[in-house]
Amino acid sequence: MSKKLRFAIIGAGRIGYVHAGSVYDNPSAELVYIVDPFTESAEKVAAAFGGKVSNDPEAVINSGEIDAVIIGSPTPTHVPLLATAIKAGVHALCEKPIDLDIKNVDSLRDAANAAKTNVTIGFNRRQDPQFKAVKARVEKGEIGKVEQVVITSRDPGPAPQAYIAVSGGIFRDMTIHDFDMARYFVPNIVEVSATGANSFCDYIKEENDFDNVSVVLKGANNEIVTIINSRHSAYGYDQRIEVFGDKGMLQIKNLTDTTVELFSKDASSAGEPYMDFFLERYAAAYRNELALFIQGISEGKNLGSTYDDGRAALILADAAHESARTGKSVKVSL
Amino acid sequence: MSKKLRFAIIGAGRIGYVHAGSVYDNPSAELVYIVDPFTESAEKVAAAFGGKVSNDPEAVINSGEIDAVIIGSPTPTHVPLLATAIKAGVHALCEKPIDLDIKNVDSLRDAANAAKTNVTIGFNRRQDPQFKAVKARVEKGEIGKVEQVVITSRDPGPAPQAYIAVSGGIFRDMTIHDFDMARYFVPNIVEVSATGANSFCDYIKEENDFDNVSVVLKGANNEIVTIINSRHSAYGYDQRIEVFGDKGMLQIKNLTDTTVELFSKDASSAGEPYMDFFLERYAAAYRNELALFIQGISEGKNLGSTYDDGRAALILADAAHESARTGKSVKVSL
Amino acid sequence: MSKKLRFAIIGAGRIGYVHAGSVYDNPSAELVYIVDPFTESAEKVAAAFGGKVSNDPEAVINSGEIDAVIIGSPTPTHVPLLATAIKAGVHALCEKPIDLDIKNVDSLRDAANAAKTNVTIGFNRRQDPQFKAVKARVEKGEIGKVEQVVITSRDPGPAPQAYIAVSGGIFRDMTIHDFDMARYFVPNIVEVSATGANSFCDYIKEENDFDNVSVVLKGANNEIVTIINSRHSAYGYDQRIEVFGDKGMLQIKNLTDTTVELFSKDASSAGEPYMDFFLERYAAAYRNELALFIQGISEGKNLGSTYDDGRAALILADAAHESARTGKSVKVSL
Amino acid sequence: MSKKLRFAIIGAGRIGYVHAGSVYDNPSAELVYIVDPFTESAEKVAAAFGGKVSNDPEAVINSGEIDAVIIGSPTPTHVPLLATAIKAGVHALCEKPIDLDIKNVDSLRDAANAAKTNVTIGFNRRQDPQFKAVKARVEKGEIGKVEQVVITSRDPGPAPQAYIAVSGGIFRDMTIHDFDMARYFVPNIVEVSATGANSFCDYIKEENDFDNVSVVLKGANNEIVTIINSRHSAYGYDQRIEVFGDKGMLQIKNLTDTTVELFSKDASSAGEPYMDFFLERYAAAYRNELALFIQGISEGKNLGSTYDDGRAALILADAAHESARTGKSVKVSL
Repeated sequence: MSKKLRFAIIGAGRIGYVHAGSVYDNPSAELVYIVDPFTESAEKVAAAFGGKVSNDPEAVINSGEIDAVIIGSPTPTHVPLLATAIKAGVHALCEKPIDLDIKNVDSLRDAANAAKTNVTIGFNRRQDPQFKAVKARVEKGEIGKVEQVVITSRDPGPAPQAYIAVSGGIFRDMTIHDFDMARYFVPNIVEVSATGANSFCDYIKEENDFDNVSVVLKGANNEIVTIINSRHSAYGYDQRIEVFGDKGMLQIKNLTDTTVELFSKDASSAGEPYMDFFLERYAAAYRNELALFIQGISEGKNLGSTYDDGRAALILADAAHESARTGKSVKVSL
Repeated sequence: MSKKLRFAIIGAGRIGYVHAGSVYDNPSAELVYIVDPFTESAEKVAAAFGGKVSNDPEAVINSGEIDAVIIGSPTPTHVPLLATAIKAGVHALCEKPIDLDIKNVDSLRDAANAAKTNVTIGFNRRQDPQFKAVKARVEKGEIGKVEQVVITSRDPGPAPQAYIAVSGGIFRDMTIHDFDMARYFVPNIVEVSATGANSFCDYIKEENDFDNVSVVLKGANNEIVTIINSRHSAYGYDQRIEVFGDKGMLQIKNLTDTTVELFSKDASSAGEPYMDFFLERYAAAYRNELALFIQGISEGKNLGSTYDDGRAALILADAAHESARTGKSVKVSL
Repeated sequence: MSKKLRFAIIGAGRIGYVHAGSVYDNPSAELVYIVDPFTESAEKVAAAFGGKVSNDPEAVINSGEIDAVIIGSPTPTHVPLLATAIKAGVHALCEKPIDLDIKNVDSLRDAANAAKTNVTIGFNRRQDPQFKAVKARVEKGEIGKVEQVVITSRDPGPAPQAYIAVSGGIFRDMTIHDFDMARYFVPNIVEVSATGANSFCDYIKEENDFDNVSVVLKGANNEIVTIINSRHSAYGYDQRIEVFGDKGMLQIKNLTDTTVELFSKDASSAGEPYMDFFLERYAAAYRNELALFIQGISEGKNLGSTYDDGRAALILADAAHESARTGKSVKVSL
Repeated sequence: MSKKLRFAIIGAGRIGYVHAGSVYDNPSAELVYIVDPFTESAEKVAAAFGGKVSNDPEAVINSGEIDAVIIGSPTPTHVPLLATAIKAGVHALCEKPIDLDIKNVDSLRDAANAAKTNVTIGFNRRQDPQFKAVKARVEKGEIGKVEQVVITSRDPGPAPQAYIAVSGGIFRDMTIHDFDMARYFVPNIVEVSATGANSFCDYIKEENDFDNVSVVLKGANNEIVTIINSRHSAYGYDQRIEVFGDKGMLQIKNLTDTTVELFSKDASSAGEPYMDFFLERYAAAYRNELALFIQGISEGKNLGSTYDDGRAALILADAAHESARTGKSVKVSL
């Protein structure tokens, strides 16, 4: 690539900061604009990684000065900004979820699928070296036909009440990553059954949301995917997967900073506490996601998650939301 | 105990053989009768561990020559033989399930609960050193309040079709152990949601049964228990549990014969394949179960699983059976 | 075996107690005599496992009432009692070391090697399931040609000063097990180099002995065996081996009672503390050792460690003792 | 740091390439010169990371265009180039070993220790996150007083004969890293005992060198350090340490690319093969080493390994070389 890809980043929060760092580190990219209504935040990112500051995302996308945009602003802005980018012929990498309302997602679906530019949804976990390695080995046939997937995903601690209130609920906000991970191994899900509980957090209950859930998905080929979530975890960020096939099983463990183990009178082989922050745990995933987005642009095709992947995850989240409230499994068509 | 407890064992199959060995090894017990319609099987047990041979369980229970009976004959005989033992004033240790039909279970319930002798149901896993250690540490408060339990239970391979046909289905035959294990940590279950699949075994499908299932239970205190079952497992008998509380998590691993690990060009830290037979995996559990049964008799109280524990597991199995077929969660009252 | 093998056990200390239990549990053996100058100790063993009590080992060996003797009395009695047993035509299983003085060992060597009965030295670790599994896999060729062996052996805590004073020093008392384990994998050792230190225990230093040592052995085929010892270990009994070949490496880990692991804010995957007592750690090894001794008698050959194995270990211990004091490696001929 | 530190790198081989990458990635540094007699190699580095190409290291060091030099050229050039850098007032980071001959090392010792610029020796392993974490926890007192250190270090495969011929022998070429690691935990070593073998490689034997060695070091406070080396390892690069104190033990494991484990009929918990190349295994260590070198320059003091650290490692290597040939331990004074 002789010329660097010119990026704008919409949203200068912590995820925007991460993306800005990835753009800065990537030799094929340069950061031209960082956009945020809070100028101070945008200036902080610009100071670290370069770029001009703006508070007008539409203007930046239409400026002609950028080739690609990373949309990391609040969820309600995703669909309109994606629409703007598609019209402007600007490649877009948009954070998940596309929207909390499937009608809004569907309203842009045709345009997104017909776009001449790449429209990629930021399901970063598919780019995590751990999950990718499992996927590669499943595809090599090491465990035969996939029959069961078990995804354990527990956050270090719950988001604040104000965030929970607008999050769309645990299924659309947190489990949505796991729905996408389920589809990484079992793309065609046909039925969703969910159970929610209020085990520990009063304000999550006040918001009519759950703090602990289990979701069971059924695949078109009789696969069963089980997702176990909690909004807190005393031992750090818990991100595991187990893929069970007719010839064996593959698992990943959580990450620690080093492999040091302590042997004492109290315990043997005690590892370090797990990493407890998603940006740290998924640092490589975010870098890989951007690299793949850039590579896709250079190859003229989307190598990451598609708009319809984003839509599918929301359909599953909606179904889980309904199932957990009605006690009935919900059939879906992705 | 100055005098040895005199045992009869009903059923000279492999589980009867195990119990006979435990009786033989226990210094407080002696094997007086081994009963089986197949005299040859009974004689084989008697040759190894002593005792007289009979093919008439009722007569043996009523003979006055025994203090306790272990009922390991086919499921339909459990309720009538328990009834006989209760009337005869003979302590009984009965293999699970009590019966496949809750009506039959209920028909003996009052008598069983009013019995002056011990009526113990053989949920051996509660006596497994692994599970017991987890339980003890949970009770010590190491992980705080229990919020989630995840039970993984995969058999090495499916039982033959003839067995499946009369098994009552995977939930009543296999998951029933996991339902009891769920209640070991969360005694009061109030709701059951189950998903079944036919992933690999045609004859299980022919019997209208499932080969892979996931079950989600909800406890009265907002606990969520997730059970993952398969009728086969390429890597051996898979028997794990994870108990998640607000202060931490406890897990057990599967057992290998030794701790030897191989490091080669193909893999690092490769352990031995897992034990692949339940009698080997749960050898200590069976011995402990008998020892506790005997100790309970000497202390004049039932220290093992009660008749109502057996009934509760069947209620959960029935609910799972229904839920997996209707797609609706089922409320239960144990 | 139609008739039970009649045993006497000399020495009713803790190791005698263990052997008595093994004899009791073995269906081919019976305990006829338990011998100890402290009648009370002997009576305690007899009460638990049967047998008559005596304080005269020579008389018992010559009584005609026994087929085999287990010699677990203090080290200086080993050679004379073995001599008596050989003359009396009584099979003997003698605890290590044969003697602390190689001259005494050599004085009985010809008689021991010419004995018509089995003369077995109790290097129990060769019968430990962990070490045996490594040995079996080495012999199957899983790691190719053995090049290096690393043996880590740390006791939970030092023996009392009175014991240290007559122990013959760490190499003859403690490392002697590791010398035999070294020879399990590399039988022909030709050179010994040892380094000793006084790191933590004043009274061991007072006895001119070491509390921490490293020993390096060289085999006739250019193998290197490294032994690491400590007289204490805060995390329990540390008994590991690593066998390194040109195609891979095999290792064993220490044993815990269960596989339970704790995940908390302080540590991940923290296992239970290690077993901290040799009788517990090597319970299976002691039972296997006796079973193999009995099997050897029935097959008319010694299946366990030979007198010359016992002698070889002492030669290595003597060489290490010298090397650690002179700073020179010592050539040996086993 | 307002102005970037201007670097020259002497030696455009694989280690020079790594350092060039670290300089390129470090925001406080820039690569001004890359020097190698093979212009093609130098041009390759320059193409990747910038900088001018030269084949005259002395001229470059004296050019006035650089602030710091990384010396990664062949060992015999280290002392003269260090001397030039010291005279020129240029900071120097020099690869280990300083020289194979202690006389050459001593000839520059006073000048190096009196230098106004930083003279740092490249013992990168001290900057490895794994070893650093162990060190930090030892210093926090987690395992009490250090009594034993066990270092296992096995290369994936032997260097070619031509390299072995001029390497100075395994102790000066390979174990030298482990000597420095030993001193990381036990700085004051007073005695060295070494055993060498020729187990697998004919041409190493032809060069009068060993392919497998064990070295035992004694510290001034009665610590024992045991080093186990092999010139090959079928299962990848083996780099472990175990630090044993009176309150516990700390260990590190080898690194794999991911935590994925396979469970199959052949093995349980089988990890990925270990990384098998030192540049991959120690990638972070090299980056950290350069960052620390740069930080030291900005703080006006050497934060890395000193010239005397390099000298101490060579003294230990010389002692081991002698001990392995004479069979006598060698006292040293560092």
